[in-house]
Amino acid sequence: MPIVQMEILKGRTLEQKQEMVKEVTEAICRTLLCPPEAVSIIIREMEKDNYAVAGKLYSDK
Amino acid sequence: MPIVQMEILKGRTLEQKQEMVKEVTEAICRTLLCPPEAVSIIIREMEKDNYAVAGKLYSDK
Amino acid sequence: MPIVQMEILKGRTLEQKQEMVKEVTEAICRTLLCPPEAVSIIIREMEKDNYAVAGKLYSDK
Amino acid sequence: MPIVQMEILKGRTLEQKQEMVKEVTEAICRTLLCPPEAVSIIIREMEKDNYAVAGKLYSDK
Amino acid sequence: MPIVQMEILKGRTLEQKQEMVKEVTEAICRTLLCPPEAVSIIIREMEKDNYAVAGKLYSDK
Amino acid sequence: MPIVQMEILKGRTLEQKQEMVKEVTEAICRTLLCPPEAVSIIIREMEKDNYAVAGKLYSDK
Repeated sequence: MPIVQMEILKGRTLEQKQEMVKEVTEAICRTLLCPPEAVSIIIREMEKDNYAVAGKLYSDK
Repeated sequence: MPIVQMEILKGRTLEQKQEMVKEVTEAICRTLLCPPEAVSIIIREMEKDNYAVAGKLYSDK
Repeated sequence: MPIVQMEILKGRTLEQKQEMVKEVTEAICRTLLCPPEAVSIIIREMEKDNYAVAGKLYSDK
Repeated sequence: MPIVQMEILKGRTLEQKQEMVKEVTEAICRTLLCPPEAVSIIIREMEKDNYAVAGKLYSDK
Repeated sequence: MPIVQMEILKGRTLEQKQEMVKEVTEAICRTLLCPPEAVSIIIREMEKDNYAVAGKLYSDK
Repeated sequence: MPIVQMEILKGRTLEQKQEMVKEVTEAICRTLLCPPEAVSIIIREMEKDNYAVAGKLYSDK
């Protein structure tokens, strides 16, 4: 039942997302001792003008 | 003040979303004893390559 | 795969939460046409000094 | 390390978002006594048919 | 309808949270041009062993 | 800037959480090609009566 939500910036390839969910799921199962079927991952891709650090949008950096 | 966030896969019709928010709100009010105006629902629609179970994206199933 | 996150104020009984997840799940299945097993609900209970509307904490109202 | 997630309706200009993240970050730093670099803000823009209050989508109001 | 979720580390005083929600709400209203009643803020306070950066829990730093 | 939020059931040891954030961060960096410092992980631990699947709380299973 680990439910994972990930905010990432847009621009990753499908292959990167495929590899990422596979490896993150394995890391969770290995350390929290749960079966892979129990792990859900939601990816939310952000535009650069929807993410800010230190009061500045990424699109302005 | 119940604030509800729902992640669903893309592809539902407007009619389905209209019915869903109506019935979910009623279910919350009936059981938690709050007025409908207190219930906010945020729907986030996911692409199939942004949701994974068991380490596999939905778009790969 | 609808994943629901609900923020509610603390103070509901176990019975209310049992009824609520049952009825909300039914409402989702009926309207979005998915099986009950596909619906996960996360409840997060807030203290009154962790929720604000109009710039004022609930504990101050 | 304050991490802020904001759901807003679509339609704000880039200038509004620039000003908003700047001023919200300043408000957090001033009151929680943390450096601006510690504050991340995620903006999620909703369509009007993905937000409901009182069981009604915004697109139906 | 801006709905704000804030993750902060535990340890802030009630006074800090009161000031923070007040000033953040004002910053949002001023920049996004919405009335204060439209702004909800959810605060979630994290223990230091529930937050990690660079693969290390805060409680280990 | 990947920001990860994880909901897990209560009951994991500190050691499990330490290993988990370390390995999940490595998995993300390896696949999304970002430096470890860019990865933040928020863990939220749920009580069994705050998580439901198929309309039933975990505490009732």
